[in-house]
Amino acid sequence: MNSSITPKLNILKTETSRVKEVDFDNLVFGSTFTDHMFECDFKDGEWQNPTIRPYGNLSISPGAKVFHYGQAVFEGMKAYKDDDGRVWLFRPEANFERINKSAKRLAIPEFPRDIFFEALTTLVRMDKEWIQPGLGNSLYIRPFVMATQVGVSASPSDEYKFMILAAPAQAYYTGDVKVVIADHYSRAANGGVGAAKAAGNYGAQFYPTNLAREKGFHQIIWTDDSEHKYLEEAGTMNVFFRVNDTLITAPVSDRILDGVTRKSVIDIAKHNNIDVEVRPVLVSEIVEAAKDGSLKEIFGAGTAAVISPVSAIGHKENVYELTKPEDSYSARFKKDLMSIQHNITEDPFGWRFEVK
Amino acid sequence: MNSSITPKLNILKTETSRVKEVDFDNLVFGSTFTDHMFECDFKDGEWQNPTIRPYGNLSISPGAKVFHYGQAVFEGMKAYKDDDGRVWLFRPEANFERINKSAKRLAIPEFPRDIFFEALTTLVRMDKEWIQPGLGNSLYIRPFVMATQVGVSASPSDEYKFMILAAPAQAYYTGDVKVVIADHYSRAANGGVGAAKAAGNYGAQFYPTNLAREKGFHQIIWTDDSEHKYLEEAGTMNVFFRVNDTLITAPVSDRILDGVTRKSVIDIAKHNNIDVEVRPVLVSEIVEAAKDGSLKEIFGAGTAAVISPVSAIGHKENVYELTKPEDSYSARFKKDLMSIQHNITEDPFGWRFEVK
Repeated sequence: MNSSITPKLNILKTETSRVKEVDFDNLVFGSTFTDHMFECDFKDGEWQNPTIRPYGNLSISPGAKVFHYGQAVFEGMKAYKDDDGRVWLFRPEANFERINKSAKRLAIPEFPRDIFFEALTTLVRMDKEWIQPGLGNSLYIRPFVMATQVGVSASPSDEYKFMILAAPAQAYYTGDVKVVIADHYSRAANGGVGAAKAAGNYGAQFYPTNLAREKGFHQIIWTDDSEHKYLEEAGTMNVFFRVNDTLITAPVSDRILDGVTRKSVIDIAKHNNIDVEVRPVLVSEIVEAAKDGSLKEIFGAGTAAVISPVSAIGHKENVYELTKPEDSYSARFKKDLMSIQHNITEDPFGWRFEVK
Repeated sequence: MNSSITPKLNILKTETSRVKEVDFDNLVFGSTFTDHMFECDFKDGEWQNPTIRPYGNLSISPGAKVFHYGQAVFEGMKAYKDDDGRVWLFRPEANFERINKSAKRLAIPEFPRDIFFEALTTLVRMDKEWIQPGLGNSLYIRPFVMATQVGVSASPSDEYKFMILAAPAQAYYTGDVKVVIADHYSRAANGGVGAAKAAGNYGAQFYPTNLAREKGFHQIIWTDDSEHKYLEEAGTMNVFFRVNDTLITAPVSDRILDGVTRKSVIDIAKHNNIDVEVRPVLVSEIVEAAKDGSLKEIFGAGTAAVISPVSAIGHKENVYELTKPEDSYSARFKKDLMSIQHNITEDPFGWRFEVK
């Protein structure tokens, strides 16, 4: 899109804020939305009428392609408020680039950078009263695009709606997480959409995850679909393994999402002179390491959860418990990340982005 | 669901039918809907308030899970009108069973058989003026289910909407189809959702299909994602190969949809004493057969398209043209299938289902 034809952002303010009604100590993740939302429609070959308006229902045809063909992608990002009341985003450029990468794989037109940032920062500014200060509190921000053309024929839509919703959030996971290594179901195909934040990738995981839950696990660590030989990513997180003092994680691929938290953890680890190996991770080596005691930690990394320490990992009939070491990497990375996100420490990486 | 608690079907009739405004000779597939639609909501653990009402927009939260996680499945089926004005469905039981099989894989609650059939037949009866008689004309029927719970956390919805839309249709494909064999992108993973009519399976194919179109092909024949060695299915169709006089098609698997037209073709072929081999189909054998002239026909089989003869198949840098033989299987199967569907011939298989 040519920025010279960027349309003006329309703003319709709510008459009555709902912020006073919210119990910020008892939020269910992602289910309470702020006063406003952003929407912008793609029609006649261009993104038009970008508008921030009061959060509310859409009027949409049941024949819209998103319902039938899952032509939709999304992002997850957060805004934080520091103790001085200043508001910060974390690496928003990475989310912007990724939603357009995801969009391309789903045959969705890319969204213009200037509208994205103007909408994002304006929305956060308008609803900044919804952001609670304090470590762990945030505003979860959900940009997404969906196919809105009416038609039940399996072809790309020629109309789309780009939206941004925002929901105040506390910590995503409470407590440690038990994971199980996939040995039957799979998340992504070679040459598929696993590297995109495509809507359908997530719905496809619910049934196998339910089966895992019935066995006492919270999440699945997905493996390659051919042989279940390599460890890839978990439901909404990339996964890291600490064997002795080395941090190991799988490389991104067309099956594995290029996680913003993932790459931030890698940078923080390197900054702390920790050995990092980004390479295919064998199920067998992790199981061996669990058996011989050299597996010190496993943790998930993702925007919603930030860092989720794994307390046990299941494989076939066995479950290996993990005791968090005193010099826990996951605790350190979480602290470092959150300190940067909340403007508590310096930001040597230039990741913070102030919403002024 | 226990049928003893089946709720009554509510019916709200439109005041003014739109059927007179429709140009039945120039329909765009799947974009004109009949006067009515069916909807039924899953809430508090049960399907409730089944209603046929005038076709129109839904009021739905932008936070509904279907937009974010693609938790949605669908079916495609058709109703036909014979020259006496009687209306027929084709193997509706197969579609009913399959939507519940798809639903299960997507962690969606199954839909009750009695509500499905009552809604389906009532809707078709109410909108039967929309069905044109004549070979190739039909009413395309689209049952689908989607996750409606509001919440942007990646977990199964606890609320759903089951709907049935209906759209008058002429033939889906006009002319012959050029296909290309996938050698980079893939449709489905082992242990994935390829066997389900999951919404996300279709959106994921649009980008690779666009690339194929740029090279002059209409559809992709997907292959296994590991080695691109086996031929599986096309975008919205299963695929059949005729080598000499033998009909060959891949077995259904967790990557390949159990197509209603596919299994009907197999039965018709057997009924006509044609040798049928349901077994893994190697790319190499079909390419060899194309080279030595033993490959007589390729065709797709699906509800929307019925039978789509393939006129050329691309593989790597080569394109192999196919000349339809005089004793074309695809023409014969299409005629046999449509004759049964339109109540022109006997139905030795018991596939027709009259909507009285």
